[in-house]
Amino acid sequence: MKLRAFAPATMLLATTVLATPALAQRVAPPAVAIAPTVTALRDAALKDDVAYDIVSGITTEVGPRPDGSPAEERARQWAVAKLNALGFKNVRIEPYELKNVWVRGVETAEVLGSYAQPLRLTALGNSGATPAAGLTLPVAYFASFNDLLLAPAGSLTGKIAFVSNAMQPTQDGSSYGSQGMARFVGPNIAASKGASAIVIRSIGTDHGRGPHAGTTNFAPGVTPIPAAALSVADAENLERIVKLDKQVKLHLTLTPTVVPSRMSGNVVAEVPGTDPAAGTILIGGHLDSWDLGTGAIDDGAGIAITAAAAKHLLDSGPHRRTIRVVGFGDEETGGFGGAAYAKAHAGETHALASESDFGADRVWRFETNLPESAKAVGDRLAVALAPLGIVRGAGVGGDGTDVGPTLKTGVPAVDLNQSGLRYFDYHHTPEDTLDRIDPEQLRQNVAAWTTMLAIVADAPEAMGPVTPKK
Amino acid sequence: MKLRAFAPATMLLATTVLATPALAQRVAPPAVAIAPTVTALRDAALKDDVAYDIVSGITTEVGPRPDGSPAEERARQWAVAKLNALGFKNVRIEPYELKNVWVRGVETAEVLGSYAQPLRLTALGNSGATPAAGLTLPVAYFASFNDLLLAPAGSLTGKIAFVSNAMQPTQDGSSYGSQGMARFVGPNIAASKGASAIVIRSIGTDHGRGPHAGTTNFAPGVTPIPAAALSVADAENLERIVKLDKQVKLHLTLTPTVVPSRMSGNVVAEVPGTDPAAGTILIGGHLDSWDLGTGAIDDGAGIAITAAAAKHLLDSGPHRRTIRVVGFGDEETGGFGGAAYAKAHAGETHALASESDFGADRVWRFETNLPESAKAVGDRLAVALAPLGIVRGAGVGGDGTDVGPTLKTGVPAVDLNQSGLRYFDYHHTPEDTLDRIDPEQLRQNVAAWTTMLAIVADAPEAMGPVTPKK
Repeated sequence: MKLRAFAPATMLLATTVLATPALAQRVAPPAVAIAPTVTALRDAALKDDVAYDIVSGITTEVGPRPDGSPAEERARQWAVAKLNALGFKNVRIEPYELKNVWVRGVETAEVLGSYAQPLRLTALGNSGATPAAGLTLPVAYFASFNDLLLAPAGSLTGKIAFVSNAMQPTQDGSSYGSQGMARFVGPNIAASKGASAIVIRSIGTDHGRGPHAGTTNFAPGVTPIPAAALSVADAENLERIVKLDKQVKLHLTLTPTVVPSRMSGNVVAEVPGTDPAAGTILIGGHLDSWDLGTGAIDDGAGIAITAAAAKHLLDSGPHRRTIRVVGFGDEETGGFGGAAYAKAHAGETHALASESDFGADRVWRFETNLPESAKAVGDRLAVALAPLGIVRGAGVGGDGTDVGPTLKTGVPAVDLNQSGLRYFDYHHTPEDTLDRIDPEQLRQNVAAWTTMLAIVADAPEAMGPVTPKK
Repeated sequence: MKLRAFAPATMLLATTVLATPALAQRVAPPAVAIAPTVTALRDAALKDDVAYDIVSGITTEVGPRPDGSPAEERARQWAVAKLNALGFKNVRIEPYELKNVWVRGVETAEVLGSYAQPLRLTALGNSGATPAAGLTLPVAYFASFNDLLLAPAGSLTGKIAFVSNAMQPTQDGSSYGSQGMARFVGPNIAASKGASAIVIRSIGTDHGRGPHAGTTNFAPGVTPIPAAALSVADAENLERIVKLDKQVKLHLTLTPTVVPSRMSGNVVAEVPGTDPAAGTILIGGHLDSWDLGTGAIDDGAGIAITAAAAKHLLDSGPHRRTIRVVGFGDEETGGFGGAAYAKAHAGETHALASESDFGADRVWRFETNLPESAKAVGDRLAVALAPLGIVRGAGVGGDGTDVGPTLKTGVPAVDLNQSGLRYFDYHHTPEDTLDRIDPEQLRQNVAAWTTMLAIVADAPEAMGPVTPKK
């Protein structure tokens, strides 16, 4: 059992008195002083209404805003107006070109034969297209992704692969990484084994009829095949049908298209600091969303949380470091906004880069990859975040699609991890709507981010560089 | 506080000892003897697997089965095979003609203007059609059904009425009757006040993206207008948009059609009794379902529960009265199967008529309209059902669309009321799928129905006639 660095003194005293021999090694951590301005900002942020106003606004006034779409352009205009209205400085759009924009088409599927019925699914990003009239082919069923890996080369010729691995909720979201393989690379593997198309059980933890969208990728030299995610309920039904009729055929119609090029962009806003040499704090979320829902948890919430937290710093400043809030473009189909940001800002000094892109349920943990020079910053974070119910994780921070390209240049990170126990019920589905946001948990997020910004913005310590997390 | 007739003796003793003057009037009910065969059947039914097999089968092997469709015909064939396999006697289809079959078409809607985005909705049964290219008209918003009633005659000309009354869950389902008015008669009222179309907030207690289908009716002389239900999440979004843009327009496309005539039918199966003069016990659910889900709670469950309970009587017989299980056709669009049954069996003696059409959550209450001659039957039901957690209601039983026309002829009823607290989360939506059925609660339903059948089938008392419930 690892001693928690921020265990309060009363608990440590009790531990000492009652200690068994095995626990006798525990020692109290050094006392850490937190500036009263930090705790005051944290507690005020627990009453924040700015974040809910932002996520309500973008989901209501813009709605779905898929990558490279006119709606995403509208989201940029909306964000510029909102950030200016909130008083941020240097608010601007940094444009870039988005190539090979994947655009959803018709998407239908039906079971044929004795158990004929429609199925609900959605095409995966980068899916190939069927003929306009669809494909009619037998199903090759794989209960797990591993079973697909075991299928012999060429064994899927003339078939629609159906991979139905189930996903359980995890607080740290780690089941997405493992079970998500069926979506991330399943279509490429099925294609390379000769499949004409693939349908997967949605990568999600719900049991509903809303399929989970998401991007897949095909390796160079592999021709994209039609690829779609069935809703979990439909996948469970198809599993039962496959067991009744081993020869069952599906009729599958997916007609996505690819537009060669569209202009897109990142929205940037700043809280100017007093010491430009101390480096910029980069925070934000992504403005784009999948098209099935209205992008509340993914990632209106991230825009809302980071902008609201920065607003608390704006109103209490000036602070030492500049805080830059970015609404990244085109995260969902490949992190293009994050790459464009890193390219546009190469050579600038960043003190920190952190994003919010995991909904708005409570932050339960934080992790950093701070350098030895900034060790005390981590200790102050641990003490100041503990009253919000946030623990210090044992791992190394530095994750994120949007800030990833910036982190790769040696910039430190503080990851504030939201609970993922509910996230994959709604992620990338039609159900990602405003009502999934719990206003009280959203406020706890704003308080966590405000606390983190207040500590880092005024830290006298040097903040980098660091060895990037792999 | 009303004394519960089935209060156990120990509780009554304690009440007597501790009684305040106000409670001193309490008296113990007469002792009621329950045949050991009844309790044995009840307890065995708590381990039932037949019901789950049926509801899994019909939702998997047939799937959605809308009124008058080829899938509903397939459901009849499926039910005949299943009921024969279970050993029921006289299994047959009783055909009838279904006129003016409403068939769903395209259904899309978009907000136009500053907050442009798609909305999810579904056409209501009997909805009129828009032109194929849709209608583009301003919205007239009504926060409640009563506000629609208050709208002046002619005030809706050239507009799409939007009625957004919300529904809260109730255990007895009574909120459906009151809040459902927006669907049942809202379109007729909007049409009569000049509206070109109407969209309503779904009559449901969820907050999801799956709209709730359902039938509406237009009065003679009122031309049906296009009428649809928005998902609750979409209705909530449109309410926010209407407040931002009072001139907001919708583009609405609904293209349902009407087929003049199709053959349909009821599926009938029997457990023959030893005393034909004692009258038949009519039970069942409806075979048809709305097309968006696979008809698990509405009403695969009803077929499953009543057939499984009758199977327990079949295997333990013979019993005095014949039990007739009916899978009614075409309930959703007007109760046509129930009407056809009453017509086909006019003049026969029925001892009881009861249906299961409210999902498969726990039976929490029963109500009857038994005649004085059968008062003791009700007392036995109270005692035998109490261990299943079922209370005797203070109201009068005798509800149901399918058995309604038979009940109107003076046949008594025993209503076994399922809890409605969850039912309207899924009712008539894409989410009405097998995973909504809780196998343990389903077994409690089978035990309740088995107990009821065991008591009524062998009751020596005369069972009717009665004055029908209004």
